[in-house]
Amino acid sequence: MLEQLKERVFQANLLLPRQGLVKYTWGNVSGKDEETGLIVIKPSGVPYETMKAGDMVVIDQDGKVVDGSLKPSSDAPTHLVLYKSYPKLGGIVHTHSTEATAWAQAGQDIPLYGTTHADYFAGSIPCARALTEEEINGEYEKNTGLVMVETLINRGINLMYIPAMLVAFHGVFTWGEDPESAVANAGVLEEVARLARFTRQINPNVLPADDALRDKHFYRKHGANAYYGQN
Amino acid sequence: MLEQLKERVFQANLLLPRQGLVKYTWGNVSGKDEETGLIVIKPSGVPYETMKAGDMVVIDQDGKVVDGSLKPSSDAPTHLVLYKSYPKLGGIVHTHSTEATAWAQAGQDIPLYGTTHADYFAGSIPCARALTEEEINGEYEKNTGLVMVETLINRGINLMYIPAMLVAFHGVFTWGEDPESAVANAGVLEEVARLARFTRQINPNVLPADDALRDKHFYRKHGANAYYGQN
Amino acid sequence: MLEQLKERVFQANLLLPRQGLVKYTWGNVSGKDEETGLIVIKPSGVPYETMKAGDMVVIDQDGKVVDGSLKPSSDAPTHLVLYKSYPKLGGIVHTHSTEATAWAQAGQDIPLYGTTHADYFAGSIPCARALTEEEINGEYEKNTGLVMVETLINRGINLMYIPAMLVAFHGVFTWGEDPESAVANAGVLEEVARLARFTRQINPNVLPADDALRDKHFYRKHGANAYYGQN
Amino acid sequence: MLEQLKERVFQANLLLPRQGLVKYTWGNVSGKDEETGLIVIKPSGVPYETMKAGDMVVIDQDGKVVDGSLKPSSDAPTHLVLYKSYPKLGGIVHTHSTEATAWAQAGQDIPLYGTTHADYFAGSIPCARALTEEEINGEYEKNTGLVMVETLINRGINLMYIPAMLVAFHGVFTWGEDPESAVANAGVLEEVARLARFTRQINPNVLPADDALRDKHFYRKHGANAYYGQN
Repeated sequence: MLEQLKERVFQANLLLPRQGLVKYTWGNVSGKDEETGLIVIKPSGVPYETMKAGDMVVIDQDGKVVDGSLKPSSDAPTHLVLYKSYPKLGGIVHTHSTEATAWAQAGQDIPLYGTTHADYFAGSIPCARALTEEEINGEYEKNTGLVMVETLINRGINLMYIPAMLVAFHGVFTWGEDPESAVANAGVLEEVARLARFTRQINPNVLPADDALRDKHFYRKHGANAYYGQN
Repeated sequence: MLEQLKERVFQANLLLPRQGLVKYTWGNVSGKDEETGLIVIKPSGVPYETMKAGDMVVIDQDGKVVDGSLKPSSDAPTHLVLYKSYPKLGGIVHTHSTEATAWAQAGQDIPLYGTTHADYFAGSIPCARALTEEEINGEYEKNTGLVMVETLINRGINLMYIPAMLVAFHGVFTWGEDPESAVANAGVLEEVARLARFTRQINPNVLPADDALRDKHFYRKHGANAYYGQN
Repeated sequence: MLEQLKERVFQANLLLPRQGLVKYTWGNVSGKDEETGLIVIKPSGVPYETMKAGDMVVIDQDGKVVDGSLKPSSDAPTHLVLYKSYPKLGGIVHTHSTEATAWAQAGQDIPLYGTTHADYFAGSIPCARALTEEEINGEYEKNTGLVMVETLINRGINLMYIPAMLVAFHGVFTWGEDPESAVANAGVLEEVARLARFTRQINPNVLPADDALRDKHFYRKHGANAYYGQN
Repeated sequence: MLEQLKERVFQANLLLPRQGLVKYTWGNVSGKDEETGLIVIKPSGVPYETMKAGDMVVIDQDGKVVDGSLKPSSDAPTHLVLYKSYPKLGGIVHTHSTEATAWAQAGQDIPLYGTTHADYFAGSIPCARALTEEEINGEYEKNTGLVMVETLINRGINLMYIPAMLVAFHGVFTWGEDPESAVANAGVLEEVARLARFTRQINPNVLPADDALRDKHFYRKHGANAYYGQN
């Protein structure tokens, strides 16, 4: 079932190592079928080199395997929390990509230092707080999702305008309307994180860009008044 | 029309991702036809992988499309300000290349720390000031060009001797007598920016090189008394 | 003799330059034959490009060459100390991989800054002390092994839970149940070391992750209660 | 004439861009013919992509072109000073390789931080002082060689034991008994420079390795008592 979405999620997963965002098996992509609400996700711990489209696992929104012979990614419960909380989401990516994960390990937001960032993310990339010992020892992966939702709510963030989040001491999640745009956001985030590390290295006292510049660049590419690109 | 220049501008654009200076669609090259003064420029937001020479857009110096079915780069008005102000310019490049953009985001000139820099640029690479909110919300791309011209005038810089500029919180522009030399300057600038970051990391109190060394190396390669290469 | 293990050790050695962990001849892999206790190890100073499986050297636990026409790696005595002290070891890797060696040269443990680290190593990567002048001028390579054993004992480390160690002013050793897992650990260690350098650069005051998070991730992948992967 | 040496010097030059040590035309290799004392060197400013063995230029020890239709490297006078001062030299390399040049621009010696360094260089890599304005405006390239000789003499360095030197605000020279070993030293130096930058970043207060460790590793590979490698 959902063979077409399986193929897309499979291809989106392969893009991660190809773009240098994932080493070994440290990442996963999922996609949502709009009609049924079912989720297609990478199987757990399967090497990218041997993985096939048919290995993708279909789960329902409670995490029950509906189709597929392999176990879904151990991070599936995190994805599910996000899909349930934000029905607009069509694709989610999780990676430990080096530059973005370094900011996550540092426990800091990635400030909006320039237009490269603003072209894709309308504000600093938030870093969700570390989980408590209770949250870790309980339903860990689900709680990881809940901490992300908590961060979005507490900060009043529209997640389609800042489609990426760091989780302290852990790694990175990005998302979008579909698996492909979630992967694209993961790639941009990695470069934005690298730029931010270099920027602060050159000028430790640097300040973020003005809100006016942020809005100019974000809305040049997004929304009703966008004028970047063709039509 | 201008099929030959279209081909050259097209090839020059392709050099950007090949040299690692551009990711996604974050860059553009333009070239000027000396005879007519018309500008050939990359279309807006078209992926490098599928772009063809015939996709290049011909605009006049007011930005009106004279030939081509696609919209020109959204940065075209910035290019035009430079071409109008400096008739010697034959090619302009804009990128968000990582190392140079980090200096732009840091809001700092790239000091002339050694002969690699001096072989191509006869002084520090200037960083143009951030645009005001009014400039951002007005004709943003045109104002970006005007801020660069302001920087050249205020600092008394001969732009053919320092064919590169950073724009604060944004990215990099380089230029030359033709599109190919503008691209070459973009490549050298990226390495010079990397060297400068490493240099300051190793010795935070480092001073720029002497003017005598700067002049020796620059004029060894440029001008009437150059003796580098096979003349 | 031991042709199959020679082939495996040979292939494991080739993985080092392919993964960017070894330049020139700066590394070696060995493997132990469980039945006989004999060790197969890379020959000394032979370039990876021309090396063949048949060049692997078989030595006994006293370092005597039992099979092979070449001299074993000059680091063989270090490997032997570890094999003798820890019978569970089936493979050992030594490299000067850039990121991990920088920590060794800095004389510092690599702190457990996040889950990427915790997925493979159940604590900080220890840095063994510098050898004394006497130890250097004596049986240097053997003493390098003894200092590593001293570090494991003094710190009460189970070496199968933290299968990697730095040696101050020198480089890196990793190990595992077989040569292949020792190489895998060398690859993960390099990325963990890079992440740690970036993390501290972004936040010089960063603290290691909580023990609860460390245990959650390590035991999610290792031991009786592991639930990551396709068991 | 000297066709065989031309071929070797040509091949040695090609190794520089292949190993990432040279961008554009920023480097050159020369070799000395032991019998005649003639020097074969890369022509000035010729791109590596189109260069042929026959383009190599033969000069005598006064810099006069003895064979070849192209101008020799503008750095030839620097090479000649070294060849004249040290008859044992058989090959010299000049590059602006990124990591080593950053130390040169920083005006600092590369300290001996570990065994990777000590395996090839028996002490810190010296950084020659900046040239005076008079030296720059006089016979600049020759004076660059003289400053290097001055550094070797003042510090009492045996140049075959530390076959590399930085020149402040400029770049790197390495050498050896032949062009091939000079290139190998350039490659090792670049990695040693990178390791040193990372090491100091991780631990700004790090001290160099002990002399005992330095000697152990250097003489393990060099001189009468070497025991690394085969034979």
